[in-house]
Amino acid sequence: MDQQRSEHPNLVRPLRCIVKLGGAAVTCKNDLEKINEAHLEMVATQLRQVMISGSSSSEIPGMDWSKRSGKLEISLNVDEFRDQELLEPSSFIVVHGAGSFGHFQASQSGVHKGGLERPLVKAGFVATRISVSTLNLEVVRALAREGLPSIGISPFSCGWSTREKNIASANLSTVTKALDSGFIPVLHGDAVLDELQGCTILSGDVIIRHLAEHLKPDYVVFLTDVFGVYDRPPTEPDAVLLKEIAVREDGSWSVVKPPLEDRHVEWTVAAHDTTGGMETKISEAAIIAKLGIDVYIVKAATTHSVRALSGDLKGNIPDDWLGTAIRFAG
Amino acid sequence: MDQQRSEHPNLVRPLRCIVKLGGAAVTCKNDLEKINEAHLEMVATQLRQVMISGSSSSEIPGMDWSKRSGKLEISLNVDEFRDQELLEPSSFIVVHGAGSFGHFQASQSGVHKGGLERPLVKAGFVATRISVSTLNLEVVRALAREGLPSIGISPFSCGWSTREKNIASANLSTVTKALDSGFIPVLHGDAVLDELQGCTILSGDVIIRHLAEHLKPDYVVFLTDVFGVYDRPPTEPDAVLLKEIAVREDGSWSVVKPPLEDRHVEWTVAAHDTTGGMETKISEAAIIAKLGIDVYIVKAATTHSVRALSGDLKGNIPDDWLGTAIRFAG
Repeated sequence: MDQQRSEHPNLVRPLRCIVKLGGAAVTCKNDLEKINEAHLEMVATQLRQVMISGSSSSEIPGMDWSKRSGKLEISLNVDEFRDQELLEPSSFIVVHGAGSFGHFQASQSGVHKGGLERPLVKAGFVATRISVSTLNLEVVRALAREGLPSIGISPFSCGWSTREKNIASANLSTVTKALDSGFIPVLHGDAVLDELQGCTILSGDVIIRHLAEHLKPDYVVFLTDVFGVYDRPPTEPDAVLLKEIAVREDGSWSVVKPPLEDRHVEWTVAAHDTTGGMETKISEAAIIAKLGIDVYIVKAATTHSVRALSGDLKGNIPDDWLGTAIRFAG
Repeated sequence: MDQQRSEHPNLVRPLRCIVKLGGAAVTCKNDLEKINEAHLEMVATQLRQVMISGSSSSEIPGMDWSKRSGKLEISLNVDEFRDQELLEPSSFIVVHGAGSFGHFQASQSGVHKGGLERPLVKAGFVATRISVSTLNLEVVRALAREGLPSIGISPFSCGWSTREKNIASANLSTVTKALDSGFIPVLHGDAVLDELQGCTILSGDVIIRHLAEHLKPDYVVFLTDVFGVYDRPPTEPDAVLLKEIAVREDGSWSVVKPPLEDRHVEWTVAAHDTTGGMETKISEAAIIAKLGIDVYIVKAATTHSVRALSGDLKGNIPDDWLGTAIRFAG
C-alpha cells in the first residue's frame, strides 16, 4: 500500500526544488569528520532566504533547542512564537552527500562492494551509518537554527534498498507526508541493504534522481565546492567552465555554452569517492533534465547559488551567472 | 505491500528479546541533554555479554569508527577483522526513551498535544526530533564500540504514525530486514505525525508493545533507574518492591509477590514526563505479558539486569533477584 503510494505520490503542495548539498561544500573534505561550519551556516541562510522569501533571520525563531557544544544552557524564548504566524516555507527537499563523513568508513571496509557475511564489511556498514547520521544531524540542526522546519530522514530507515546499486524499493510515503505537513525532509547518502550483494552505498545523487522522477520538482540544484562542471580538472589553468549542457531525447548530452570546438573533455573521480565523481553527477543530472526539470550545478554559499536556488534561472541564464545549467533540448 | 508484510513479519531468526533502555537509566535525568556515560557503557557491555555469549570486549573489534570528542584521530585497525569469524549476536531489538533528551523540547512546545499549525508546536516537533536523534546516535555508538552491529532506526523515518496517540501505521519491514541481516535495530521514543491531532509523542513503551505483539520475542526487559516497580514512590521509606505481578486473561493484574494485604498502591508520574510514568509502564507491560511474553523491569547496569537480559529468569525467579517480573497467569 505504502509502496503503491510511493509510485504515485500525490503531494498537497507541488515540490519546488530538490537541493543537493555536496559533501565537499559543507565539510572539510580532507579533514576527517570535520564540518565546514561557516559554509554550512551560509548555505542554511541562503536556503531560508529563498524558502521563506524576504525573511530575515531576526524575525524567525530558531528550531534547534539543543545544547550547543561548549554552551551550558539552551537558549529558548517560548514567547518568540506567541504572536508568530506560521511561515510556510515553500516545498523543498534537501539531500546531502558525505564529504569527509562516511567515505573513510565505507572505503576502509568496502561496504559499496557488499558482502555482509564478512566481519569487516558488517562493521563498516555500522560505522558508515554512524558517520553519515552524525553529519545528517548537524545539517538538520543548521537548517533548524535558521528557522527551517527540517526533518532528518535516513534512506535506510525508510526501508530503501538497492539491487546492484540501483534503487530496488524506495517507499516515498515518509518523505511526502513530511512535505505535506510543511517540513523539509533532509536525506543523505547512506549504507543500505542490496538484494544481490547484501549491502552497498546509496549515493545522494542516485537518491535525487529517484526523488525527481517521482516527485517532479520545478528544478534541482547541486551545491558543490567549485563553480560548476569544467571540461577538465578545475585545478588546471586552461579548464573551461561548461555553462550550459543540452540533453537530448536519447539521453545523450552536449555542451551548448561555451562553444568548445573539438576540445576533449576529461573527467576526474576523487580516489576516496566511493560513489563516483563528476561523471556520475552529469549522467544523473542528464536523466533528471530529460524529465524537463532544469538542473543547476553551482558553487555553494555564493551569489550564484542564491540565484540558482531562487529559481530565477528557469527562464534564461544571465551571462554574469557562474555555474552549469543542464536542461532538456527536446 | 510493505504494510502487509508488517502485519505478518516472518523473521528468519526468532527474536530473542526486546530491551527498553529507560531514559533515566542512560541519561542524567535532571541535567539537560547529558548522557550518563558510565551507565550507558556498562549497559552496552552487559548487552554484548548476553548477545554474544561468553564474549570479552578484547576479542571483539569496535564498530564505531567515528572521531571521539577530544580525540583527533580515528582508531581503526582493519587487520583486527581479517581473521575474525562473524559472531552473529542473538536477535535483539533495543528501544530507548528520552530521559533528559527531548522531554524539555516536547513539554515546552506541547508536541504531545498536537497542532502543527501552531508555530511553537511545529518548532517543538523539529527540536524534539533533533534532541532524541542526538541521544539515539550516542546509544548506537555505545553499542557499536562494544562490537554490536547496531543500526539506528527512527520511528518517524519508518513512517510510523499514530491516531489519537495509538499506533495507526507502523511498517515493520525495515526492522525485520535489519534483524534478518544480523543487525540490532535501535529505536526510540519519537515525535510522529498523528492522523487526528496532527502530531504527538510516540513513547518507547508503546513502540515496545507494538513490536512485541508483532515480532513475538521470548521476553522483554525494561532497564530503569530503580530496582523495579514499587507500591509507592521508591523514595518513601516504606515503599515495597513488587517482585511478581500476575496478569489475567481479562488484562487485569495483581501483585503475587510479596503479599501486600490491603496496602493501597500509589503511582507517580514525573511532572516533566510527557509520556506517562509507572502506570503507563505497567499497563503496557501487562498487555505484553498477556501474550505469554515475560516482562522484567529491573535496575540497569546491575547483576540483576544481566540475569534478566540473559533470559535465565524465564523458568523461575530466584529469591535474591531484585526486580519486577510481570507474567501471564492464564
